[in-house]
Amino acid sequence: MRISELSRRSGVSVATIKYYRREGLLPEGRALNPTAVEYGEEHVQRLRLIRSLIQLGGLSVARTREVLDAVDRPLDAFETLGVVHHALPVPSADTNGEGGKDDAGPDADGDEAAPGEGVAARVEALIESMGWQISDGSPHRSELAASLAALGRVGADYTVDDLLPYARLATSTADLDFAQLDGIEDRIALAERAVVLAALFEPVVRLLRRLAQEDANHRRHHRRASGRSGPPAG
Amino acid sequence: MRISELSRRSGVSVATIKYYRREGLLPEGRALNPTAVEYGEEHVQRLRLIRSLIQLGGLSVARTREVLDAVDRPLDAFETLGVVHHALPVPSADTNGEGGKDDAGPDADGDEAAPGEGVAARVEALIESMGWQISDGSPHRSELAASLAALGRVGADYTVDDLLPYARLATSTADLDFAQLDGIEDRIALAERAVVLAALFEPVVRLLRRLAQEDANHRRHHRRASGRSGPPAG
Repeated sequence: MRISELSRRSGVSVATIKYYRREGLLPEGRALNPTAVEYGEEHVQRLRLIRSLIQLGGLSVARTREVLDAVDRPLDAFETLGVVHHALPVPSADTNGEGGKDDAGPDADGDEAAPGEGVAARVEALIESMGWQISDGSPHRSELAASLAALGRVGADYTVDDLLPYARLATSTADLDFAQLDGIEDRIALAERAVVLAALFEPVVRLLRRLAQEDANHRRHHRRASGRSGPPAG
Repeated sequence: MRISELSRRSGVSVATIKYYRREGLLPEGRALNPTAVEYGEEHVQRLRLIRSLIQLGGLSVARTREVLDAVDRPLDAFETLGVVHHALPVPSADTNGEGGKDDAGPDADGDEAAPGEGVAARVEALIESMGWQISDGSPHRSELAASLAALGRVGADYTVDDLLPYARLATSTADLDFAQLDGIEDRIALAERAVVLAALFEPVVRLLRRLAQEDANHRRHHRRASGRSGPPAG
């Protein structure tokens, strides 16, 4: 198909397609002659993935390239997932680049307590208690420690015992995640689905938690307000 | 205490304190005389909360003001939590300013399946299946529908049955969340903790899921690579 058809099929404008091509996100099409380029189904699929990663996953072009490179490299699924995991941002202290710094005002140094060993030790103890196998290069250890330190600074300290029930539910959720990947044999399709899972399915999990919190708030309110033993739902 | 002491105690610079005061986030101190203002413990606590909401929660100044207003209003905890829930952003279709609107627009037609009623109906069916009580004004319904539509556009369609196990785990997580609030009697402290929980604890839950996914990936790889029945952990 020509670029106009590719645009129609993918829902991405011609200008944006050219931009992605210049940025190296989208492979070249097949040159039919000096002025006409033919694109295939793989370009449609790739464009949708790029668009989703950037618009919905919130990834930068550079990060998107990193993820696409991992998807394209002849790694096994295990390694591909490792790269994807490390590339995808998790909103925490350092994610909001622009927003965080500007909004925080003139400067924001002067932490009263250097977060560090206390929270890092808690993260290690949690990982050990769970029997989790986590690579040394994982950024999530230090990100979790940073999140716990941030909570500590507003007076919300979490012990390993506080976190364990959450960690157990996280394991159950991760098992559901991998069940989604189990039927997929094609390596590229598997990697792409893993990207989608990590980048696009995460908001679903968060929104389900928000809905469940609203319901939990209602149930709690209902119990307190009416003195009855519970809501009719079940 | 004077502003210099407030700065030291809160870890927020004097310039930033003045910025927050100008923006109406921090209440005025008590004027001792025309050049000296006295601040109290409530200012220290408030500053830490503001800083956390902006830097870690990723909230804009306007959103932060909205949340603080809710915390200050004489609402009961139930209503306060409702406001907090609706104010706190969840990365999804509409978070990335620029991306969201394009995606939802008529742009998306010409795709084989127009997202819309299909996903909204799925969200309603899910809420009904779970017996969740969700207010009509909740933004999370449409955000969830938008997330599901986005997944559908990259070929990842989720049925109500696919989502139910996730929703059940979300309920368990929400129950843990509310257990954290149960011991707190003071209304302001309760609301503040709820803000912290929604804004700052959410990354912890996401990071635990990431760590659990890495472990699940290891376990899966180990099983495939070695042909053994399972990892030693557990």
